[in-house]
Amino acid sequence: MIVTLLTDYGQADEFVGVCHGVIRTVAPDATIVDVTHGIPRHGIRHGALVLRNALPYLPIGVHVAVVDPQVGTERRAVALRCADGRLLVGPDNGVLSLAWERAGGVVEAMDISRSPQRLEPVSATFHGRDLIAPVAAHLATGAELATTGDPLDPAELVALALPEPSVDGDHALAHVLMVDRFGNASLNLGHADLLQAGLTLGSRAEIVAGDREAEATVVQTFADLPAGELLLYEDAWGSLALAINRGDAAAELALEPDREVRIAPVR
Amino acid sequence: MIVTLLTDYGQADEFVGVCHGVIRTVAPDATIVDVTHGIPRHGIRHGALVLRNALPYLPIGVHVAVVDPQVGTERRAVALRCADGRLLVGPDNGVLSLAWERAGGVVEAMDISRSPQRLEPVSATFHGRDLIAPVAAHLATGAELATTGDPLDPAELVALALPEPSVDGDHALAHVLMVDRFGNASLNLGHADLLQAGLTLGSRAEIVAGDREAEATVVQTFADLPAGELLLYEDAWGSLALAINRGDAAAELALEPDREVRIAPVR
Amino acid sequence: MIVTLLTDYGQADEFVGVCHGVIRTVAPDATIVDVTHGIPRHGIRHGALVLRNALPYLPIGVHVAVVDPQVGTERRAVALRCADGRLLVGPDNGVLSLAWERAGGVVEAMDISRSPQRLEPVSATFHGRDLIAPVAAHLATGAELATTGDPLDPAELVALALPEPSVDGDHALAHVLMVDRFGNASLNLGHADLLQAGLTLGSRAEIVAGDREAEATVVQTFADLPAGELLLYEDAWGSLALAINRGDAAAELALEPDREVRIAPVR
Repeated sequence: MIVTLLTDYGQADEFVGVCHGVIRTVAPDATIVDVTHGIPRHGIRHGALVLRNALPYLPIGVHVAVVDPQVGTERRAVALRCADGRLLVGPDNGVLSLAWERAGGVVEAMDISRSPQRLEPVSATFHGRDLIAPVAAHLATGAELATTGDPLDPAELVALALPEPSVDGDHALAHVLMVDRFGNASLNLGHADLLQAGLTLGSRAEIVAGDREAEATVVQTFADLPAGELLLYEDAWGSLALAINRGDAAAELALEPDREVRIAPVR
Repeated sequence: MIVTLLTDYGQADEFVGVCHGVIRTVAPDATIVDVTHGIPRHGIRHGALVLRNALPYLPIGVHVAVVDPQVGTERRAVALRCADGRLLVGPDNGVLSLAWERAGGVVEAMDISRSPQRLEPVSATFHGRDLIAPVAAHLATGAELATTGDPLDPAELVALALPEPSVDGDHALAHVLMVDRFGNASLNLGHADLLQAGLTLGSRAEIVAGDREAEATVVQTFADLPAGELLLYEDAWGSLALAINRGDAAAELALEPDREVRIAPVR
Repeated sequence: MIVTLLTDYGQADEFVGVCHGVIRTVAPDATIVDVTHGIPRHGIRHGALVLRNALPYLPIGVHVAVVDPQVGTERRAVALRCADGRLLVGPDNGVLSLAWERAGGVVEAMDISRSPQRLEPVSATFHGRDLIAPVAAHLATGAELATTGDPLDPAELVALALPEPSVDGDHALAHVLMVDRFGNASLNLGHADLLQAGLTLGSRAEIVAGDREAEATVVQTFADLPAGELLLYEDAWGSLALAINRGDAAAELALEPDREVRIAPVR
């Protein structure tokens, strides 16, 4: 069974490589896919969104997410089975919650904080290596979920709440969900919301974010506009996003997660 | 069959991981080699050069290159078979062209823009995921090239032109082809050109690039000179390159792609 | 047999990908684990420490380390067998030495500088590709160590010396061994040394490093302190380390490798 990994460990240190080593020790033949290790440090929601977005493109397998500012404290680590058969492993801080929503909900949950599969002694700061990687590896070899720890009521799991947009006939109030490394900012709006707010392909939109104002054009893709122009487009995950062709929209508009963005047709 | 990937996606986001997921969904047992994902954003020629250089060190397989500033527009995506058996997949913007030159030329070409193997709906901005990765994966499982799209005359493919150096008995006029992350700048000259211009191992050379001037020593390797010294050496791909031992030659001499560099023996 | 790779090549260029390609050409079915390619450029000791720390978490295999400022000069490249069965391949500059100490010492050593398995012509600057990767790949396919080069007396290998700490009843004089990308600085002290200097969990410690002074709290994990607070903790490799919760201790205290750090209980 495939193991996918998503963390905020970065690639500069050996954290990811050591997790691979641990997985290979238990499951020498597992296929490992590194979804990304570039989640912003401690960016639980960012990690949760990226895992949710990526999930439909990953084979069904064991999906690990480690963004864990509370590592070493009382927060639980968990292993979960979703309705669609996917297995999720990570800290119980919400980083898995958007994924399990997309995977049909949790049908079985285990608290793995004292898993018999953990590496002893468990360090206080690197549960990815000592707890989460070995449990994921055992699952990849076909171990039953029930062997990984102590049963847990799925209703007790920590779930994230995302901000809610509002849309009426002449504007939309959205929020930035996350910003990628190019400065493209995805919003909690879909294309249908844009239509409802009176905007279609080619429309000009007034954008207000905090004290910044700008005009954007609704387009399909970056190359529809000259370099330097602000655009509003449906990104590859189906979210509306703000970007600047060959530029950095987040820097230009001071966009960051949760920032409210008002979008209205230019009159 | 092995799949190799070269992109400008970087490692900070999930773009590469999602392409791996798509490939693994179609071709669970494929071997994937990430040649690099650090091509400068939109650096078509840089990507083309790196793929050309790397090719002889990669097993024959399916070689993907995605550097694609025009994604979502009318530009084609293509899948190609080369004379030496290698298969190339990517946008038809020249990024594949130096590779197919090295691989003996294109013997069969398909326009895959509407490939039956694409993931629907194809996003406007992430053809790597929706079009190029699935086609590459099907080829890796042994699908015939003819199944990937519509036949195309190889003569219609977009090819890059590289600048031409000139060498005479007492100097060479070269151009920077690319700059690596250490600031080493490779030139469109080989070692034979240097000999023709009157320079041999140990020679001192006058370097003029725009308004910058410096003297370099012709050496075999970095450690032949003290830290901070400018050197001219044959790099690992057989190109002459300018570097500073433990320093950054590109910054010192303001070198960037296409910058003309005059090299002459110091009198 | 598994091949693990540790280098200072970074991920921005194609150096790592090309080494993978070379290994796959010789050993198509090898499993490759990238321990890290983020070792600071020319950081021989940093690389040696990281490999030593990671080793117990890696399956027994062929372990490559390339941090090689003297590439292309007379320095040897070597392939080694350790007492515990691990094989090490890399330049003979000390980067392998802490690993072989942990692996029970060297029982057989070969100088591979002119290995029959090398790729000809061997470049002057990229022995990772031309010498070390192919030798590692042959070993991974089961080739005998004796086939990789010329026998060498293990006593002739270059070994690193680490600084020695001193501890008495009321303070410890330690040294920074390395700094990770979060600014956490690991010291050449273990938890027992701390006890000997009169410090236990919850103690306040006075830290003096050069002209910087600060107070730290001895804790188990980051989340035991508010953001911004300096902490002294046992890191995941069993070394004492200085860190700032959600901050950068190395920047705050001007810590760098070999910097002496005085640690004493606050009176």
